[in-house]
Amino acid sequence: MERFAATAVERDERGGTPKAERDALRASGLLALSIPREFGGGGADWRETLDVVRLLAGADSSIAHVFGFHHLMLATVRLFARPAQWQPWFEQTARRRWFWGNALNPLDDRTVCSAQTGWREFSGQKSFCSGALDSEMLVASAHEEGSGAFIVAALPTGRTGISVAPDWNNIGQRQTDSGSVTFEKVRVEQHEVLADPGPLSTPFACLRPLVSQLVLTNVYLGIAEAAFNDARHYTLNESRPWHAAKVAHMHDDPYVLSRYGEFWVGLEGVRVLADRAADRLDAAWHRGSALKEEERGEVAVAVATAKVAATDTGLDICTRMFDVAGARATHGGLRLDRHWRNLRTQTLHDPVAYKVRELGEWALKQQYPVPTFYS
Amino acid sequence: MERFAATAVERDERGGTPKAERDALRASGLLALSIPREFGGGGADWRETLDVVRLLAGADSSIAHVFGFHHLMLATVRLFARPAQWQPWFEQTARRRWFWGNALNPLDDRTVCSAQTGWREFSGQKSFCSGALDSEMLVASAHEEGSGAFIVAALPTGRTGISVAPDWNNIGQRQTDSGSVTFEKVRVEQHEVLADPGPLSTPFACLRPLVSQLVLTNVYLGIAEAAFNDARHYTLNESRPWHAAKVAHMHDDPYVLSRYGEFWVGLEGVRVLADRAADRLDAAWHRGSALKEEERGEVAVAVATAKVAATDTGLDICTRMFDVAGARATHGGLRLDRHWRNLRTQTLHDPVAYKVRELGEWALKQQYPVPTFYS
Amino acid sequence: MERFAATAVERDERGGTPKAERDALRASGLLALSIPREFGGGGADWRETLDVVRLLAGADSSIAHVFGFHHLMLATVRLFARPAQWQPWFEQTARRRWFWGNALNPLDDRTVCSAQTGWREFSGQKSFCSGALDSEMLVASAHEEGSGAFIVAALPTGRTGISVAPDWNNIGQRQTDSGSVTFEKVRVEQHEVLADPGPLSTPFACLRPLVSQLVLTNVYLGIAEAAFNDARHYTLNESRPWHAAKVAHMHDDPYVLSRYGEFWVGLEGVRVLADRAADRLDAAWHRGSALKEEERGEVAVAVATAKVAATDTGLDICTRMFDVAGARATHGGLRLDRHWRNLRTQTLHDPVAYKVRELGEWALKQQYPVPTFYS
Amino acid sequence: MERFAATAVERDERGGTPKAERDALRASGLLALSIPREFGGGGADWRETLDVVRLLAGADSSIAHVFGFHHLMLATVRLFARPAQWQPWFEQTARRRWFWGNALNPLDDRTVCSAQTGWREFSGQKSFCSGALDSEMLVASAHEEGSGAFIVAALPTGRTGISVAPDWNNIGQRQTDSGSVTFEKVRVEQHEVLADPGPLSTPFACLRPLVSQLVLTNVYLGIAEAAFNDARHYTLNESRPWHAAKVAHMHDDPYVLSRYGEFWVGLEGVRVLADRAADRLDAAWHRGSALKEEERGEVAVAVATAKVAATDTGLDICTRMFDVAGARATHGGLRLDRHWRNLRTQTLHDPVAYKVRELGEWALKQQYPVPTFYS
Repeated sequence: MERFAATAVERDERGGTPKAERDALRASGLLALSIPREFGGGGADWRETLDVVRLLAGADSSIAHVFGFHHLMLATVRLFARPAQWQPWFEQTARRRWFWGNALNPLDDRTVCSAQTGWREFSGQKSFCSGALDSEMLVASAHEEGSGAFIVAALPTGRTGISVAPDWNNIGQRQTDSGSVTFEKVRVEQHEVLADPGPLSTPFACLRPLVSQLVLTNVYLGIAEAAFNDARHYTLNESRPWHAAKVAHMHDDPYVLSRYGEFWVGLEGVRVLADRAADRLDAAWHRGSALKEEERGEVAVAVATAKVAATDTGLDICTRMFDVAGARATHGGLRLDRHWRNLRTQTLHDPVAYKVRELGEWALKQQYPVPTFYS
Repeated sequence: MERFAATAVERDERGGTPKAERDALRASGLLALSIPREFGGGGADWRETLDVVRLLAGADSSIAHVFGFHHLMLATVRLFARPAQWQPWFEQTARRRWFWGNALNPLDDRTVCSAQTGWREFSGQKSFCSGALDSEMLVASAHEEGSGAFIVAALPTGRTGISVAPDWNNIGQRQTDSGSVTFEKVRVEQHEVLADPGPLSTPFACLRPLVSQLVLTNVYLGIAEAAFNDARHYTLNESRPWHAAKVAHMHDDPYVLSRYGEFWVGLEGVRVLADRAADRLDAAWHRGSALKEEERGEVAVAVATAKVAATDTGLDICTRMFDVAGARATHGGLRLDRHWRNLRTQTLHDPVAYKVRELGEWALKQQYPVPTFYS
Repeated sequence: MERFAATAVERDERGGTPKAERDALRASGLLALSIPREFGGGGADWRETLDVVRLLAGADSSIAHVFGFHHLMLATVRLFARPAQWQPWFEQTARRRWFWGNALNPLDDRTVCSAQTGWREFSGQKSFCSGALDSEMLVASAHEEGSGAFIVAALPTGRTGISVAPDWNNIGQRQTDSGSVTFEKVRVEQHEVLADPGPLSTPFACLRPLVSQLVLTNVYLGIAEAAFNDARHYTLNESRPWHAAKVAHMHDDPYVLSRYGEFWVGLEGVRVLADRAADRLDAAWHRGSALKEEERGEVAVAVATAKVAATDTGLDICTRMFDVAGARATHGGLRLDRHWRNLRTQTLHDPVAYKVRELGEWALKQQYPVPTFYS
Repeated sequence: MERFAATAVERDERGGTPKAERDALRASGLLALSIPREFGGGGADWRETLDVVRLLAGADSSIAHVFGFHHLMLATVRLFARPAQWQPWFEQTARRRWFWGNALNPLDDRTVCSAQTGWREFSGQKSFCSGALDSEMLVASAHEEGSGAFIVAALPTGRTGISVAPDWNNIGQRQTDSGSVTFEKVRVEQHEVLADPGPLSTPFACLRPLVSQLVLTNVYLGIAEAAFNDARHYTLNESRPWHAAKVAHMHDDPYVLSRYGEFWVGLEGVRVLADRAADRLDAAWHRGSALKEEERGEVAVAVATAKVAATDTGLDICTRMFDVAGARATHGGLRLDRHWRNLRTQTLHDPVAYKVRELGEWALKQQYPVPTFYS
């Protein structure tokens, strides 16, 4: 973790694939963290897995994102496919230290799927494919010709016809490799299709977007905590009190203290909401296929609540941290703006206004969020 | 509870002492709720006791306040006095259904205490004495002549020389009887003085202000929840959609939904923070005299965090509720403004800016709040 | 003005019609303020007239509202009717010191208009008829049977069949008499109907809702200024510094100062925006029937901007004023909560969310607000 | 202006001195804009000069800053020196198209001034010397040995002993060259010292910090306007509506509209406040040495009000613009984060909390800001 933090500034500047860090994750065994022990994994529940996501985000939010989404891909095959499918994938992931990438973006309908005799063919493009580069496995999606059905499959990244472009260059989350994947007549076997029970087919399968949203929430929170910690370091060690404050140290300035108090209230609120959401997710996860719609709905509400709070609190801290860290904290070498850039980029994953609206539907009318890949 | 809610509007208008409701509380046995079973009480921990405070505040925040402060007075004698003192008081409170009132206001130094042979004499006034009217017992304070020492005693309200004025008339919390008490040469016996271990003398004794602050927090939260519920009732049942919204029902208005979503995020944050603070308080309480400064500090931080969040969220909801309940919700007969008036009055107990500052001292410098009657 | 302020507290409690104050307004000649000198009036432009509304609102916002709406009614006949109609009404208003009241509420469609031979008949009810009680003239509206056309007429309040109920009892603006008016087969002559050019018929006629919105804006601002001034009085003269502030006077508390600074920035913003809107309204007014849609649109944007700012700033100050005025400022005798109650009630006239949306349509798409009675 | 905008992205990446753009400013004659016509200048008042600063900031805020501070340096010699000093400087600046840079930072006391026979010697360093690189003239300051007096002088940048380092590398305002200047036994002649009337010596001389603060305010506003315009471009032309919005275009999304409405209200408030402050500055400027303390105070209040509003509104827009521009607007090639980085860096010039406090002193106690180099 500290090693990741040490080079985060330099890698934020560079962008591209954090190959060494990805390999370090492979070596650490953390890629098997959420895999049950019986399949050779760490047996961690979501609370533990998300705690690691949050900690990683405190050091490097790009790595935290692809790490979290790796576990989301594992959850995806677990939830959408048959045991005979996901069990071997789990075992191999644990044994061979596979890294899974994302090529599922359901809003990008450029990839089409055509039925062949006994197999299918994927052709087209997908954008925002975080972690696809340098991955061993991909979860990919396509819209079926004719029916328009949404087909999701797990494929080796090296499969003939799949090419992953190093074309991600954004203002934040610069090492998530969230670029494009091209499928050129890619052969997809029947047993690679996640069709039973299938995408978002049951309340249990509908936990998938909640895992996704809670990974994001913990990345946001980790970034906010990193911003807070960096601000603290500068206030305590590098800043000079403002002359009009008439205090010897910036850490005694009444307005600086009040800002830190506000940061604290915000962060604590997010922490307890995120932890509670993770606990509810774990409880729902353990219910398995017995999970009911309302039970899934309760988790959805808890996750959305945490995510909205994390977004608002995080953006505020990433901006206001400079008011208490002082003008010198804008030095280019520190790249402390990366917290804001990372969070601002990541919080656009899906519009927070519609999360708030969903919560309004719940609060006012007791209507649970309708399951989609974003809710 | 519902009975209290049913008359809350009328009693808000009237002000004065809610005699019938206080007697109903006596009859309910709830005044013994926090008293251990061995002394005839309900044996509830703080989490349970504060849940009742919160629920009561949802129905009638004046009653919730005096009820919560009654249990604070019991905590006061428990924490500041010897078992030989508080045990009989606990037993009698449970048996005789005593209601305790507050005459301790440490910021009002008009009551002085003079030493006599074997006893003391209290003379002077105290303001903001919530629940003193219609109480059986008072916790009162005085500043000692000469030394200026702060003396706290438990006294029968009926003691010769004590007069409680029905002079509370404020914009909110109108039935808390937070008026003035006059002491005219009141004889205070040695065994009535809470001197061993004494006020704020040990980390354990310093839990007293935290009980106080957490009672207030739960009153704030209960008020916010009542405002939310009333708004919901009006949006769902009484309001008409705005013509420009082009929706059939106000509960489908996108801006109304978004407001409710914001309310929800705020309320949920306060709820989890308040619950966590109560749990921490209970854990510290069970440590008894073994409680260490840092442990007490952790509780203090959790309580302050919850209180600041409850203040901000509550005031926002009590104001914005009308934006979603509609213009008709301002009808005088509903007195829905009472939520704002009650919360606004109660949140001035001690300045929230200094709670935020305390949290800043903690967040920035890891300094726990210095124990006072407000921290 | 000072006389109004002196009794505002008592009259807020009482509610009902401020007969003495209305008569004082009559005696002052201010009811003719906006009437051109040629018709015996004060010849004031809108900037001056609205300044008086704002000043009155600083003393008593109920009176400011009915005063402002009186001038709105004069504007209504000026804009919707022929000179041969409004000129005599202007002259008589100036000479006889008439007070005009409002019975136009376009959202209440319970009053219907039926055509008779040479005249019309109004029957039904209207709600939110501010200033109708104790008025000499009413601007009333009805929906025409069959066509559903919206008919507006100017009528003597004393006309047979009109009854004005003293049934306004709301949490704020308690002396605006915004209750109901009943029309029972009321005869309306042809020359009393404002049909040429008619309601909202031309860009010039469409200035009417802008006058209305700007009256409201100035009432909001006046209330906010009153709240600010009352807070200042209490901070400077009645409050005690918080012990933890370690300052001798509350007016040296850093957090108190910072709050006042925020109030100031808010108020100044509203003041300049409101003044600019009034100046633009005057310029458009002087263009008369030559006024173009875009020119009217520019005024509409300026008015909406000022109104949104006044709403947000005002509600904030009316709530936060107590944080700096101290707990004693909640004393019931002061009724300082009336600022919040008055503003909260009045700001529900039409939903601020839709004003913001209108401004969004303008800011994003350069679309002027579509004229309605609220835009 | 458009030429500056066209390369702003690329130059933001590069950092360093915008030599071509500085030369274009020289060629344009705009460096003489605020110089009276009698000395060969453009004769613009502050309102006009600041309008140009604001417009430039909309295209490139680094250039706007050094341009604005160039005129601040001219104001500095005008206000602190004798006509016999500033008149030739003005003439030469107009004729020779001089660019003035800043080396005055009063909070950096590392440069000392020693008295020599008939001249003085400056030695030491200064930080945050915006626009010093590639300048013809510098306004520099030093603390006098012994007395500690603050000495300000105007010097040719090429003077022996002066070296300007290209060491500015910050997260924002990357082409302001706000790096360090080193003075090594620099000879300063008597007639180069701004001693009559001297720094902040009279109310008129005390207009200097107000020019400075208002330049900053207009840079902030220009940045906010640029962010708004960029967001608009993306919403209208590049974004896709969110599926849950059920609208065909993102510009019809109710939450997007509401956000633009909020942006508009904020921007309009800042615009009118900034314009008013400029007008007041011009009025005060024309009073010359007759200017009284209270008159200067009025300007100071107007400037501070505009600056606080510009800070808050600007940071909000620069963050929230992405919520309405969509995830694609985070593309690295657009560098749209530069608005936030530029504004965040520049708004740390002096702490906004103390501007708010100053306004609080005024609002509460009618105390004008005490003149310093920041007030």
